[in-house]
Amino acid sequence: MSDGLVFMSDTRTNAGLDNISTFKKMKIWEKPHDRVMTLMSAGNLATTQAVIGLLEERSKSSKKKTPSILTASSMFQVAQIIADTLQEIIQKRANIGPNSEESFKATMILGGQMTQEPSRLFLIYPEGNFIEASKDSPFFQIGEVKYGRPILVRAYHPDLGFKAAIKLLLVSFDSTLKANLTVGAPFDFHYYESDTLITGHTGRIKHDDPRFMAISASWSDALKKALNSLPEF
Amino acid sequence: MSDGLVFMSDTRTNAGLDNISTFKKMKIWEKPHDRVMTLMSAGNLATTQAVIGLLEERSKSSKKKTPSILTASSMFQVAQIIADTLQEIIQKRANIGPNSEESFKATMILGGQMTQEPSRLFLIYPEGNFIEASKDSPFFQIGEVKYGRPILVRAYHPDLGFKAAIKLLLVSFDSTLKANLTVGAPFDFHYYESDTLITGHTGRIKHDDPRFMAISASWSDALKKALNSLPEF
Repeated sequence: MSDGLVFMSDTRTNAGLDNISTFKKMKIWEKPHDRVMTLMSAGNLATTQAVIGLLEERSKSSKKKTPSILTASSMFQVAQIIADTLQEIIQKRANIGPNSEESFKATMILGGQMTQEPSRLFLIYPEGNFIEASKDSPFFQIGEVKYGRPILVRAYHPDLGFKAAIKLLLVSFDSTLKANLTVGAPFDFHYYESDTLITGHTGRIKHDDPRFMAISASWSDALKKALNSLPEF
Repeated sequence: MSDGLVFMSDTRTNAGLDNISTFKKMKIWEKPHDRVMTLMSAGNLATTQAVIGLLEERSKSSKKKTPSILTASSMFQVAQIIADTLQEIIQKRANIGPNSEESFKATMILGGQMTQEPSRLFLIYPEGNFIEASKDSPFFQIGEVKYGRPILVRAYHPDLGFKAAIKLLLVSFDSTLKANLTVGAPFDFHYYESDTLITGHTGRIKHDDPRFMAISASWSDALKKALNSLPEF
């Protein structure tokens, strides 16, 4: 959005329909007044946890000649480091594990800002390459993207404020919740306000959060009214 | 719906992104005052055309001892005949064609009514089995179902009239159009009014139909208004 970046992730993880758990899929790194980076992940949990673990370890070891995500000089470099790490982890499993590389795959969204740069947003693929958001494609989704996409496409506007953006994301997630059991509350969010270079509003919205329940309950009625308001066929 | 069945299908078929055509995916069989049946299909076009071709041929040959779709005594039997035919065609290709059975698959929706029965609606799988709609699951989708599903889930109501139902289906298709190139106008529709036992309203809506364009254009605004009307977060 024009004034910052909004992130939201669910917390449902599963190894089959009868084995679900809750894990945070959003990670924030902050060096106050230098850089703030948010990483969200979808796909194999062992892969994404390994990626985050490796990124953390490597950012702590000061001996490395290669820059870590905390020392890289641009968000593009950070995206490159994360993409390489992701591809390294997937490749490692593919070489020694069962012969399906597919099941170890993961996709990530990286967004943030460092000094001397505007806020930037990237979508990182399991193959180790990535794309950046632009005016034409101002947002990214990962995981189960289809159910929640139409409302984003229609209602996104760069000048949505923080509250409206969270509302839009909740409605989008709610559409997905209703159709896919592998997506579930609570939802973590982070609203990073551009040029502050510190972590913005963060929080967790539970499935019984009265604000979420009110939005979910009102949405059906609002949609029916919207449908009725259309010109007659 | 409480007063009948509404069908809508797109007409886009493709053999790759650079090879698209327009085909009608809706077939209506009618024996006035005896039975009306509508069949919609998604998946491999050669498969679905072969199924319809076989069904037609078999309904014309009066020698057969086994009932055809025009002589079967219930919609359940018709669903069984179509499902068997579908599975037969797919199996035939799977045995002699390339080794991927996947690419010859198709899924179908059958709805209609015959004397002595209420209107019934079935979803037929490529494996040759099928399920029937019920109060809890009053509608079916086939093909690219995800983008268009949330609005159906939220706005469907058994007492929608013909016009409102067509409007809802157009909005649902419009969400899919905006995301998936393999779905495209024109749209065919059929509204069968229960207990009439004759073909109901049918028609084709082109992409430049002013009614469709008005609905599509108004929908973004209506959604934004709906979003604004939700309780504040």
